[in-house]
Amino acid sequence: MPKIVDHHKQKQKVAQAAMRVIKQEGLESASVRKIAVEAGISAGSMRHYFSTQQELFLFSMNLIQERVKERIAGLPLNGPTEENVFTLLEQVLPLDEERKFEMEVWQAFTVKALTEPDLQPLNAKMYDELFQTVQFCLMKLKEDGLLLDHIDLLLETERLYAVINGLALNGIVQPDRLPPQLIRSVLQMHLQSITKKDMSP
Amino acid sequence: MPKIVDHHKQKQKVAQAAMRVIKQEGLESASVRKIAVEAGISAGSMRHYFSTQQELFLFSMNLIQERVKERIAGLPLNGPTEENVFTLLEQVLPLDEERKFEMEVWQAFTVKALTEPDLQPLNAKMYDELFQTVQFCLMKLKEDGLLLDHIDLLLETERLYAVINGLALNGIVQPDRLPPQLIRSVLQMHLQSITKKDMSP
Repeated sequence: MPKIVDHHKQKQKVAQAAMRVIKQEGLESASVRKIAVEAGISAGSMRHYFSTQQELFLFSMNLIQERVKERIAGLPLNGPTEENVFTLLEQVLPLDEERKFEMEVWQAFTVKALTEPDLQPLNAKMYDELFQTVQFCLMKLKEDGLLLDHIDLLLETERLYAVINGLALNGIVQPDRLPPQLIRSVLQMHLQSITKKDMSP
Repeated sequence: MPKIVDHHKQKQKVAQAAMRVIKQEGLESASVRKIAVEAGISAGSMRHYFSTQQELFLFSMNLIQERVKERIAGLPLNGPTEENVFTLLEQVLPLDEERKFEMEVWQAFTVKALTEPDLQPLNAKMYDELFQTVQFCLMKLKEDGLLLDHIDLLLETERLYAVINGLALNGIVQPDRLPPQLIRSVLQMHLQSITKKDMSP
């Protein structure tokens, strides 16, 4: 089915162009015309791929989620548990241009979803999956006997999740004070503070 | 100078109306017409107070910063240091409708500032002052001999700042999972984990 494949590929191309426009000029400037120019297609042909701006936004949100999942699926994760946890959580922090780009665009969708009910389910899904990833990391550390004994898993999950989302936000807003190496050091220190032995990823 | 006072009060009234529109419908929907309706004035008289939308946005950003500062200035802060620190940090978390409102509107300005150079200095100022507040809290705990001995102040400041901004973001995006009481418990647990004695605010 080459035609269907091409159609999907073309949609991805348009969505990627949309994300570049959103990153450069903001969500409210992401007009059909601008996205078409960025994607190198005519404004008229945009409707073959997306009939509304919202459909395009939802597709783009899905695309970011897929990118993060693909990146995680591609990790070897064959080291010690504490290293695997660190590597996994690194995937959702703005440590390189690709992740920084995803997070800036996602931040725009998050704010948009606060006032746009149609975007809320997909936005909530992203945060829920991220929360579950954090939960999974702590469960794995606990299963392997690496978590400190007195730890309250409910509070600890919320704390690690806040550390992750806080580092992501601060790394986007104040990259000069919080460069990737410092983000890594804070995460490493935090994981060390709740585990029994030194982690040295 | 009653006229000048009135003019400033009226600007505040308009800015507050603007923030309500932003909270309800998003920044990109905050048109002059809508804000005028919300403020109960004619669209034509808006230009007496703000000549551009950007001027209105900057004034609104300042207004939020002033509200936070006023709230902090009004705190008694006459308890033990660990209680004062907790009380101070509570002021920048979405623990009631007022703070939730401020944070949702600020989140919209933060995203806008990513692509709008004119809003960047004021947005950065807010985050810098918040960072300095976190820094001040940890210095005070250290001065009073309450911080654990092995603590690296640089990393610890970034971690507490990430916990604060992460809890704020998560509390706005997922209030059902993270209600105010749970936000408080996570902050309390975090402060306990870095201080020598139990904190019981």
